Amino acid sequence: MNTPLKSIVTDFSLIDGLSQSRPAIRRTLSAMKGMYADQSAFERDLARDDRLVYEYFDMGVPHSEKEVAYGTSIVYPGKVGSEYHMTKGHFHTVIDTTEVYFCLRGHGMLMMENPEGDVEVRELKPGFAVYVPPRYAHRSINVSSTEQLVTFFAFPAHAGHDYGTIETKGFRKIVVERDGKPEVVDNPRWMS
Amino acid sequence: MNTPLKSIVTDFSLIDGLSQSRPAIRRTLSAMKGMYADQSAFERDLARDDRLVYEYFDMGVPHSEKEVAYGTSIVYPGKVGSEYHMTKGHFHTVIDTTEVYFCLRGHGMLMMENPEGDVEVRELKPGFAVYVPPRYAHRSINVSSTEQLVTFFAFPAHAGHDYGTIETKGFRKIVVERDGKPEVVDNPRWMS
Repeated sequence: MNTPLKSIVTDFSLIDGLSQSRPAIRRTLSAMKGMYADQSAFERDLARDDRLVYEYFDMGVPHSEKEVAYGTSIVYPGKVGSEYHMTKGHFHTVIDTTEVYFCLRGHGMLMMENPEGDVEVRELKPGFAVYVPPRYAHRSINVSSTEQLVTFFAFPAHAGHDYGTIETKGFRKIVVERDGKPEVVDNPRWMS
Repeated sequence: MNTPLKSIVTDFSLIDGLSQSRPAIRRTLSAMKGMYADQSAFERDLARDDRLVYEYFDMGVPHSEKEVAYGTSIVYPGKVGSEYHMTKGHFHTVIDTTEVYFCLRGHGMLMMENPEGDVEVRELKPGFAVYVPPRYAHRSINVSSTEQLVTFFAFPAHAGHDYGTIETKGFRKIVVERDGKPEVVDNPRWMS
């Protein structure tokens, strides 16, 4: 006889996105090597402090198309040169799987790009959900100078993560601060 | 040449769960006929007012295992006899697909039951996510007397909804108020 499957309860703070019951995966500046346009600012910052850039949860649900992977993502405020703190960003390995990001706190942008070079940029504000279409790599960017960007995400659990493509090529567009405001500009280091 | 797919942005209030940009699906008392244990209380309440019991969003994402369906669900406070306001509840048509409910506001219970009769009941409180395992029907129940129960849900978009099984048989357990507190009891009207 099979043991019945059990439900899972997890706390994710609506204030800071963190959980008291589960460990987050933490990405510090050193994990972002090569991803920021201003390499000397990156090296200078890193020499000072390998600061926390973002963290997120992997709940370990089975990698099946019958399941949905979920959790929170927290991007802390900060910049490397004029470029805002951001996640690495990734394609899904099953490239035409989607993802939803529901913003709980802060102010951000969701950068999306498909292999053909179509770019979508959407604002993340508390109470706004952004649905990433099939075939788009996606990255969360915190454009607030003071507050963490907290989102609750969900995607088909068989999607998988392809980080390598973005690590190698980058996104075509980046978000930088110009005159105190976020601006989407071409990525000078993007490789076609 | 194909037109690239576009991202979708939707507002869901973190306060009341509702959207300014999308219509909700509304379930009033008359839609709940036969679902409450106290039939005479139900008829009496309905004769007075076909009140709103709950509402939720169907974002209309393609019914593909590559996509994730999502939205908010809002159950308003109230009781029929001693039984709390609740959603109809459903199995997924693809019965072994899962679902996550992330509570944004209020106080509730998520009632879950599989065809073998295993029952799981979990509390819904702000900042708590409940993951419904494969093969479990699920229903949200608002146990607050004053506040709406607001959750953000996500499930594999090919899951489908089987409402009929619950409409016919009911859940094995219901949640009623006893001495001012929620209590899980056998459903006197459950049909095996």
